[in-house]
Amino acid sequence: MRIASGEWPAHYRLKSEPELAQEFGVSRGTLRRALTTLIEEGLLRQVRGRGTFVTSTTIEPAIAQKLSTLSEDFASQGIVTTTSVRECSLIVPPRPVAALLDVTPGTSVLRLVRVRRTDQGPVALLFNFVRTDLAPGIEGVDFTSSSLFGVLEGTYGLKIATARRTFGAEAAGPDVAAALELDEGAPVQYLQQVTYLADDRPVEYSDVWIHSGRLRVTSLLLRR
Amino acid sequence: MRIASGEWPAHYRLKSEPELAQEFGVSRGTLRRALTTLIEEGLLRQVRGRGTFVTSTTIEPAIAQKLSTLSEDFASQGIVTTTSVRECSLIVPPRPVAALLDVTPGTSVLRLVRVRRTDQGPVALLFNFVRTDLAPGIEGVDFTSSSLFGVLEGTYGLKIATARRTFGAEAAGPDVAAALELDEGAPVQYLQQVTYLADDRPVEYSDVWIHSGRLRVTSLLLRR
Repeated sequence: MRIASGEWPAHYRLKSEPELAQEFGVSRGTLRRALTTLIEEGLLRQVRGRGTFVTSTTIEPAIAQKLSTLSEDFASQGIVTTTSVRECSLIVPPRPVAALLDVTPGTSVLRLVRVRRTDQGPVALLFNFVRTDLAPGIEGVDFTSSSLFGVLEGTYGLKIATARRTFGAEAAGPDVAAALELDEGAPVQYLQQVTYLADDRPVEYSDVWIHSGRLRVTSLLLRR
Repeated sequence: MRIASGEWPAHYRLKSEPELAQEFGVSRGTLRRALTTLIEEGLLRQVRGRGTFVTSTTIEPAIAQKLSTLSEDFASQGIVTTTSVRECSLIVPPRPVAALLDVTPGTSVLRLVRVRRTDQGPVALLFNFVRTDLAPGIEGVDFTSSSLFGVLEGTYGLKIATARRTFGAEAAGPDVAAALELDEGAPVQYLQQVTYLADDRPVEYSDVWIHSGRLRVTSLLLRR
């Protein structure tokens, strides 16, 4: 009730059990059973050492905070996603992408185009450009079931170390709108990323469009 | 030239000086003078231990990465901003804001509404809600010249420790559009934040709308 009314918004930290029991005029045993039910239903979640919080109704991956990927963040939160691969082929990348990947203009790279969806519908459209000199034969991988970072690190033994991620709001063009089931011109969260290996060589460039109504990028930040 | 053509896009890391000198067929002295000129013009920037990079044409604060504020990030990059204060008064906040600030419904808090602009025009519209029990009299501060975190930490001695920041893309409503000089419905980068003190009490809630064409939120991320 308090969650539905907005009195307890997403991320609200509940008071202590004794305070809540008093507020509702119930015993602590009754309160605890009620909280357990809400946790099982996914409306609350307990964070060790921090307390009990109201769950957000949109998915909130922490990809603004550390170099994890969307699929890793979904997996760690127990969110089931499916991936459809729209393209997985060798192409000559646009010149700015070639420069950011530090390859000679005219060199082929992998272009991987994927749509990721949860049971709510499509949440992200991903374009990745990957250096094939660092991952020869990668165009033969089935990315329906494998994650890109998983393949680069696991199959090719690459040491992914850092990335530079930029966030912006964009109007959905026809392709983005169709892929994310949005109206053309609707605002979409755009992420651009260049990923570097431990030896500072760029390995991957990506453009990602996110359905902002279904997925909110989140960051827990420390002052010092 | 290579910067203007997109052959060297923003964030591109230049090759070493000997390689570049050879590529252009000039002496290393000539090359170094050319680079120095481009650095002075702001088209390149040198990062100690990392190399020389092409500068971005949009402003890119790293506020997705650590708990710095827009004004701190501008200051550290030497970008001159001006702030106009549209509102600085005590109000009863909307219920979800009261809950996130952990104040009893009906309690007054500071509402601070500001527009931040660079010489390109307005870049951000900020709504802050601040607990006045933690900062009594804060409604009397002149926020044209003082930063909010500066006042909370400096004047009130509060220990700001953590924040939770959420990113989304939104369509500009009439007020946001007018403040940021955008068309209504244009995509804007939206940030929502709750800031906590070292003792875990929430001190501030904010809604921030960013002109995505003028300012791109950026994050340098580490894999492990």
